[in-house]
Amino acid sequence: VIVEVIAIGTELLLGEIVNSNVAVVGRRLADEGFDTHFHVTVGDNLERMVAATRQAIDRADAVILTGGIGPTQDDVTREALCIVGDRTMERDEAHAELIRDRITRALGSVVPSTLRMADHPSGTETLRNRNGVALGIAMVHDGVPVYALPGVPSEMAVMLDEQVLPRLRAHAGEPAVLRSRLLRTWGWGESRVADALDDLFATANPSIAFLVDGVEVRVRISAKAADAERAEALIDRVADEVRARLGPVVFGTDHETVEALVARHLDGRGWRLGTVEVATLGAVASSFARTAVAAGRFAGALVVPADEATATDPVADVGALLDRGADALEADVLVAVGRADVGGGADQDVRRVTMGVRTPHRRAVRTVTLLGDAPRVRIYARGTALHLARLAVSGVWWDD
Amino acid sequence: VIVEVIAIGTELLLGEIVNSNVAVVGRRLADEGFDTHFHVTVGDNLERMVAATRQAIDRADAVILTGGIGPTQDDVTREALCIVGDRTMERDEAHAELIRDRITRALGSVVPSTLRMADHPSGTETLRNRNGVALGIAMVHDGVPVYALPGVPSEMAVMLDEQVLPRLRAHAGEPAVLRSRLLRTWGWGESRVADALDDLFATANPSIAFLVDGVEVRVRISAKAADAERAEALIDRVADEVRARLGPVVFGTDHETVEALVARHLDGRGWRLGTVEVATLGAVASSFARTAVAAGRFAGALVVPADEATATDPVADVGALLDRGADALEADVLVAVGRADVGGGADQDVRRVTMGVRTPHRRAVRTVTLLGDAPRVRIYARGTALHLARLAVSGVWWDD
Repeated sequence: VIVEVIAIGTELLLGEIVNSNVAVVGRRLADEGFDTHFHVTVGDNLERMVAATRQAIDRADAVILTGGIGPTQDDVTREALCIVGDRTMERDEAHAELIRDRITRALGSVVPSTLRMADHPSGTETLRNRNGVALGIAMVHDGVPVYALPGVPSEMAVMLDEQVLPRLRAHAGEPAVLRSRLLRTWGWGESRVADALDDLFATANPSIAFLVDGVEVRVRISAKAADAERAEALIDRVADEVRARLGPVVFGTDHETVEALVARHLDGRGWRLGTVEVATLGAVASSFARTAVAAGRFAGALVVPADEATATDPVADVGALLDRGADALEADVLVAVGRADVGGGADQDVRRVTMGVRTPHRRAVRTVTLLGDAPRVRIYARGTALHLARLAVSGVWWDD
Repeated sequence: VIVEVIAIGTELLLGEIVNSNVAVVGRRLADEGFDTHFHVTVGDNLERMVAATRQAIDRADAVILTGGIGPTQDDVTREALCIVGDRTMERDEAHAELIRDRITRALGSVVPSTLRMADHPSGTETLRNRNGVALGIAMVHDGVPVYALPGVPSEMAVMLDEQVLPRLRAHAGEPAVLRSRLLRTWGWGESRVADALDDLFATANPSIAFLVDGVEVRVRISAKAADAERAEALIDRVADEVRARLGPVVFGTDHETVEALVARHLDGRGWRLGTVEVATLGAVASSFARTAVAAGRFAGALVVPADEATATDPVADVGALLDRGADALEADVLVAVGRADVGGGADQDVRRVTMGVRTPHRRAVRTVTLLGDAPRVRIYARGTALHLARLAVSGVWWDD
């Protein structure tokens, strides 16, 4: 099944925003075993949107459109689908009422154009949007399903997973189940992980892919089979082999994020975790506290401006941060992240960050070298601090 | 002059990398006043690359291709151009010698396929690549110039600026420039802004577009003219009209972000800003402190766990947060964000957040109603808190 993806938005053509939506759609389609031959980006222009959609219907088996279903005058995806499908516009009165209610409650009144988000071409299915008010659309034309999703990434991704992909699978008529498992690793770079798993990479089913996210490398194992049980058995075999080769570098599976694992250990001991952060500006605390499982184990955070962390010895600095945290927060476990100091000679993109963890039993500090610009260094430092916290609360310590 | 952009690479279709190249090309073309109707992404497939290039030549005045000119077997842009242009492949022997020299010096030997980077269709111009070894190609077919550039972003961007855009300007024979201005607004929803500017939206030059980012709506005004001065004059007229209609809802222009404006006001008074945050988990502090202009005005932050903000009266709660901030931080201005409480009856997605600002002169609190899931509410609350801080430090207060 070949799926064409059309992104709509003049701001994409003008390069004002990078088109991350098509990458998300492309990755999810590839995960599910669908092929994609073309991604097309078109501006907020009715005629060209119609032309692009018609061409996609001609050369693909299904079409996914993102964008152009908001409330403003330049949102014309609904109109384009009416022309392509030779249909009239209908309003979903129940949804219009819901929009009127929600917006009125929030803003006091509603402008008429907002209700356009309840419109859809006649005889098409509407797709519920859990994270926004614009309805998605599922239209079948000449036997080709066309799905219109919002351009807002968070709304688009959920609707893709929950509403479009199941419909696509049904349309494809293939009974094959696809199952995936994520092995989460920390401690080795992508190349080293890839090298260690080189031969496993050659097989098509199960297939292996690597995803780098901050300081973690995630190994995704995907298998297709007639039923879930067989797919899981195929995955089990490869997952065991990966674990045997990577050892404790594999720290979690699927939803076992580093935050969830830290929270689990804290829970077992009745501890709460707080942070004192310079380079990461509160990102360690925020990562931890915004996961539902960890929120109840969060003791608060202190963000310290870089100009207050002035000791020449970064290890002493982190010690002082841990002491400040102990005074300010009711925390059993404290994580401290010091300043990002330029390191490694003339290279502005090498930073040394010292961080430390203290539990009721012990404390330890570690200095890490991180590569990248300021935003990347913050992401890497946040991830490293969370992993050091994970090791410490699970009783695995390191030498200062 | 309409320019079509074709990005080549199966990894783009699979979403393994986000297509930042087309955004760069799109932005540069818009800056120069060229129009773009379509961006097309196609995999490393000869037949589909030929089809996409032929279609682009048919419907555009010039074509820019990125990717597919490296040394490996899946790099087939050169072959596609030979087919499209009905030409044979030629080797630039001088460049082949240069590649042989450089690679041999770096790696000790050179594999024959590497020399393909010196190939180009007969009768086409080669484009020098200062940051790499693959030659770019400039081919004219049916009067339409087609430029092939590398997919490596750093190589592509330099060759675009130094070699493609000057050729495009010469080809267009027009001195037209395009200028854009961003008016940043806060306080009205997208629909209300759009309604207020409805008639301005109808004109093509200057053109108006809306971009929503969190709680802000940005109005972009773009104008084309023979020279920059005339373009700016066209923009001025529309910008004045927009300001007249939206009033103080317009808070900044172009790079005047809310953080930059808060920092400017703080700077004028020698003040530093700290935050005490519950619902936003430190995001207000982090947004502020990570902008270079504001970092020196940052006094630190306290993130308070939601279970510690337990007063039944959210206004009292925010008062208590402001007091805690005064104790813990050396801040002249404090911003406090309380809990996100479920509000508006059964709707889980309506949250009420109370926030407050305190300067050496005055303090005020405001409760806002925000719509969305937890991550969106955090983004909206962060933006609202920054804007309340902006009002307060510029001496504009509101009633509690």
